[in-house]
Amino acid sequence: MKTPGIFRFDGAHSCHLWEVNPSDTGSFQSKEEALNILEKNKSILAEEQNKLYAQKDYAILVILQGLDAAGKDGIIRHVFSGLNPEGVKVWSFKQPSSEELQHDYLWRTHVHMPERGQIGIFNRSYYEEVLVVRVHDLLPAEHIPAALTDNVWEKRYRHIGQFEEYLCENGILPVKFFLHVSKEEQKNRLLSRLEDPAKNWKFSTADVKERSYWNKYQACYEEIVNNTSSKSAPWYIIPSDKKWYARYLISHILVNIMQGLHLQYPTTTPEQGKVLNAYRELLQNGIGEQA
Amino acid sequence: MKTPGIFRFDGAHSCHLWEVNPSDTGSFQSKEEALNILEKNKSILAEEQNKLYAQKDYAILVILQGLDAAGKDGIIRHVFSGLNPEGVKVWSFKQPSSEELQHDYLWRTHVHMPERGQIGIFNRSYYEEVLVVRVHDLLPAEHIPAALTDNVWEKRYRHIGQFEEYLCENGILPVKFFLHVSKEEQKNRLLSRLEDPAKNWKFSTADVKERSYWNKYQACYEEIVNNTSSKSAPWYIIPSDKKWYARYLISHILVNIMQGLHLQYPTTTPEQGKVLNAYRELLQNGIGEQA
Repeated sequence: MKTPGIFRFDGAHSCHLWEVNPSDTGSFQSKEEALNILEKNKSILAEEQNKLYAQKDYAILVILQGLDAAGKDGIIRHVFSGLNPEGVKVWSFKQPSSEELQHDYLWRTHVHMPERGQIGIFNRSYYEEVLVVRVHDLLPAEHIPAALTDNVWEKRYRHIGQFEEYLCENGILPVKFFLHVSKEEQKNRLLSRLEDPAKNWKFSTADVKERSYWNKYQACYEEIVNNTSSKSAPWYIIPSDKKWYARYLISHILVNIMQGLHLQYPTTTPEQGKVLNAYRELLQNGIGEQA
Repeated sequence: MKTPGIFRFDGAHSCHLWEVNPSDTGSFQSKEEALNILEKNKSILAEEQNKLYAQKDYAILVILQGLDAAGKDGIIRHVFSGLNPEGVKVWSFKQPSSEELQHDYLWRTHVHMPERGQIGIFNRSYYEEVLVVRVHDLLPAEHIPAALTDNVWEKRYRHIGQFEEYLCENGILPVKFFLHVSKEEQKNRLLSRLEDPAKNWKFSTADVKERSYWNKYQACYEEIVNNTSSKSAPWYIIPSDKKWYARYLISHILVNIMQGLHLQYPTTTPEQGKVLNAYRELLQNGIGEQA
């Protein structure tokens, strides 16, 4: 939490969710001010993405977690819509299929891990394996042998921490956002899904039922942040009651991270330069155009 | 190495390859004696596989490593041919494709990790990533960011150890075999590929060139065994100059491991039993047959 207004957890100190106000808007005086910067940040992200794609050394794994109606889809639409779709892939992880349940629990997300040069966006992720599986006691469906279910959440925190360290050491950088909304704001958003015909399709009766597990989810998220934050794969708690602020803030964090990588277009060596010059002459002299 | 003639390494003591005689044949007086037991073991494996498949809690990951002509394909053919192919899948990992190279290095093998209930056989595996990649200096092709290539082999030993621990804790049990042949026996086998028309298709000029890296490979294998052996994912060094002995020994080890899991056909609860009885009556009374 070095930068004011940014709730970044890298394992150095504990996270208490109640310390983060979901309706925080940092130092902004107006929504317009934030949206102006968001637009500028989107241009920077597009330029950085281009270099990431050309260089093909690093990959960025954006993880979006949050309760229903926290704004995950809105983030994807409003922060990432300026990117070249050739270099960005979004994967939404819903209820696992029977095929997915037959595999180890990191399998279905690892399969979709971004290649070098890509930005991968996980709309929900392997963190559901220590979240919804825990809140709703879904472990039996995963058929873990009975002898191996002791301390399963602690084991999974360790697995996930080691997996993310492995990814980082391969140049695949996880950036983890928890979209933090208040219970009141979630209610308003679910109501608007009922009232606005254009939003009806997003309404699910299950979302209302999930509200009765609110405290359990909050406690789980806090525990997750406290057990899976590290210097190389920190968690960011994003105050999300104001959608414009959440979108601005995520764009700001991503700009900082990508600029910090000092991405560069690949350069040519003098030898490669000579080869390129030779081909330039060939093209200019019309060779290969006569056939 | 508790059982005589079994070179099992679980991290408790160091492995020195020169201590294992590739032409060892244990306590056998004759080839026929070993082949008789191999046949019996294959029947036991088929029965255990059936239970594994019915129970769908555990999976077995058989990893076969060894130099060219060490007998990997022969092991698959002669030890596993009695199994139900519905419950066994073989994946051979050759030179990685350009798509595979763009991913983190465990990706291409994790994608093919066996589901619960299955026996997966990896003919070569992620161990090539600390073997052929090291011997032939192939790391640049993997495009790891330059800032992340320090101590890369040590990092990979750690990644692999943690990955295998993760697999074990999910009920996917790695069983790792190194087929240990002498340089002289490899030469004989490569020569027979040239001389026997039925074996010509297996001959590759690359295999002969690889012989000049013999010592490097042996040193790498020894280092791998010493850095990636654990109680839950041990390495077995299989003396492989006598094919019949290697095949017997692997069948013997697998029988012990699978029997040690105490696999059981799923049982029915009294309630489920009542439901089954009701359906039995329905079937016997011809209901549903009249339409």
